[in-house]
Amino acid sequence: MSSNQTSQFWSVIPAGGSGTRLWPLSRAERPKYLLPLAGDTSLLQQTYERLRHLSPPECILVVAGAAHVAAIARQLPELPDENILIEPQPRGTGPAIGLAAAMIAERDPTAIMGSFAADHVVRDPTALVLAVRTAIAAARAGWLVTIGIRPSRPETGYGYIERTGEQIDLPGSDLSRAYRAAGFTEKPEYDRAVEFIRSGRFDWNASMFIWSVDTFGEEMRRYLPDTWDRLVRIAGSQSGADGWDVLAREWQAIKSVTIDEGLMERSNRIAVVPAEMGWSDVGDWHGLGELIADRDDGNAFRGRVLDHATRDTLVWSTTNRLVALVGVGDLAIIDTPDALLVVNRHRAQEVRAIVDKLTGEFSEFV
Amino acid sequence: MSSNQTSQFWSVIPAGGSGTRLWPLSRAERPKYLLPLAGDTSLLQQTYERLRHLSPPECILVVAGAAHVAAIARQLPELPDENILIEPQPRGTGPAIGLAAAMIAERDPTAIMGSFAADHVVRDPTALVLAVRTAIAAARAGWLVTIGIRPSRPETGYGYIERTGEQIDLPGSDLSRAYRAAGFTEKPEYDRAVEFIRSGRFDWNASMFIWSVDTFGEEMRRYLPDTWDRLVRIAGSQSGADGWDVLAREWQAIKSVTIDEGLMERSNRIAVVPAEMGWSDVGDWHGLGELIADRDDGNAFRGRVLDHATRDTLVWSTTNRLVALVGVGDLAIIDTPDALLVVNRHRAQEVRAIVDKLTGEFSEFV
Repeated sequence: MSSNQTSQFWSVIPAGGSGTRLWPLSRAERPKYLLPLAGDTSLLQQTYERLRHLSPPECILVVAGAAHVAAIARQLPELPDENILIEPQPRGTGPAIGLAAAMIAERDPTAIMGSFAADHVVRDPTALVLAVRTAIAAARAGWLVTIGIRPSRPETGYGYIERTGEQIDLPGSDLSRAYRAAGFTEKPEYDRAVEFIRSGRFDWNASMFIWSVDTFGEEMRRYLPDTWDRLVRIAGSQSGADGWDVLAREWQAIKSVTIDEGLMERSNRIAVVPAEMGWSDVGDWHGLGELIADRDDGNAFRGRVLDHATRDTLVWSTTNRLVALVGVGDLAIIDTPDALLVVNRHRAQEVRAIVDKLTGEFSEFV
Repeated sequence: MSSNQTSQFWSVIPAGGSGTRLWPLSRAERPKYLLPLAGDTSLLQQTYERLRHLSPPECILVVAGAAHVAAIARQLPELPDENILIEPQPRGTGPAIGLAAAMIAERDPTAIMGSFAADHVVRDPTALVLAVRTAIAAARAGWLVTIGIRPSRPETGYGYIERTGEQIDLPGSDLSRAYRAAGFTEKPEYDRAVEFIRSGRFDWNASMFIWSVDTFGEEMRRYLPDTWDRLVRIAGSQSGADGWDVLAREWQAIKSVTIDEGLMERSNRIAVVPAEMGWSDVGDWHGLGELIADRDDGNAFRGRVLDHATRDTLVWSTTNRLVALVGVGDLAIIDTPDALLVVNRHRAQEVRAIVDKLTGEFSEFV
């Protein structure tokens, strides 16, 4: 990490999870964020490039499992080695983001930081930067701030944040506004999601969080005191010779929890900054198909494809094979050298069910 | 060919066509009849085995293009080399079957012969043999006999033969009967096919024809005199030194025609022997899927397949890849080393449309 720079905004990228629903392209050793799913560079590289408008390289931290450190280092040559923080075991986003926060607080107790998922797509990075600036102002005023994505459909796979009517007074005159949040709802039933959209008061939780490490520490002490104690001990030990030992020992004892469940759904100091930025979590093959569809028939083809009477179908081929389609629709077809997936796009979430079956003779495909 | 054996029944297997609708498994150089689609041996090998109950090897003739002679010889080691007759160019089933008939007539002018497609499936070979025995009796009485398959559905892709009520008196007391035919109808509209089934008088034309070469020659002289002349000249020349030259020259001048259009739809001496024998023409991937379906969910899998919430889907993989299916139905998925096909089973006939597009950069896949 760099030396103390009080005026700098810190950007944290928790890079956990393998993107099970994007199997067989994503695998345990080749997680979704390392893949070039929406352009020539990986989702991680695109995330990093967006955050470079907010933070210099020495103030960007990636938190990842040991197995992926080398690949991350190669994909982000500008990032200082010590800015890749290692989770000895997966413990969810709570401890991962908390570790980064404790490390930043150790350097600069007044720092403002933001956390941004490694594997999402943002089509309008300028809108992101503007929203984050508003969020930074709210963070300085002591709020835990969520960027809320204006919802475009009653999606049941996302979390929602409800805004109160209470707007937060902020200095400066940006277009974006911050509101006190009323609460979080994770993955609502369809009818409820429809109501959410209708009310106009709900935004998608896109896992973009901005706060001062000071406020964050106070709330962690309140809601996850044991975890925060251990994270502070880890952060304090990293300049010493026993840094790795302390990390391994303390981390082992930390309980798994998401940042949403552990903190955001419990704190009374949550604010939301609504924004539109062409966001997608690229959560499954259906979502990716929508993201890259560029033809009138709704098809999106990557690879050598010949189609006849086919619509709304995604082909993603990483082989040189010819993929021929006749009379099909609403499919995603993922063609890799050792595995082929054919999935109904409207059941793309259920790809997990296949990954769960990859045991025994099929374990090589995990 | 063997020496004259007046008591022997001759079996002819016209092995033309590449089975376009079974692409990408069947290719120009790997036609459908050479593939093991319904068991461990190829459709040609199974056809040959069935006919061995009717004819000795020296009385079985295969008529094929020069490009496939070697593969046929390897698949049928028992067949004498000279029993593979070569079509210099494709001319349809009329000249192909006619060539065999002329060659047989040259050896034995009183012979009875049958012609049987190389690439169909018969689940009950004993029923075939019984039907052919009845047909042989009718052939001796001067009829061109078709084995008519009792239809199980109003299929619009087949030809139909209508029976008259006129039963043909035959010596012996077999279970099967022969009837004078009223006429042929090729690929009827759906409504008409439904009427055909309802009437009980229509059978499918399965391209199984039995006749004496004498009767056949008479009808050829009546309806395709130029073709028959040339075929007789070819047959008469084969024992001489210029056999190949005569074949090449005469064949070039022969017009393409199917045996149905050229002869069967025009002759007044057509009889039909209705039979049930578990016949399938394995005409497309849908048909093959029905043939090999062996699970309650209607799926049929060949290869390494993992399925979730999937029904009525055929997977045919000749690679060692894992094929995973999620939430799909009514598909045929054909996975070969260099090409993948995903087709709606109910549009399986349209695979032709893809094969028609295999030009330019895709010509390697024909």
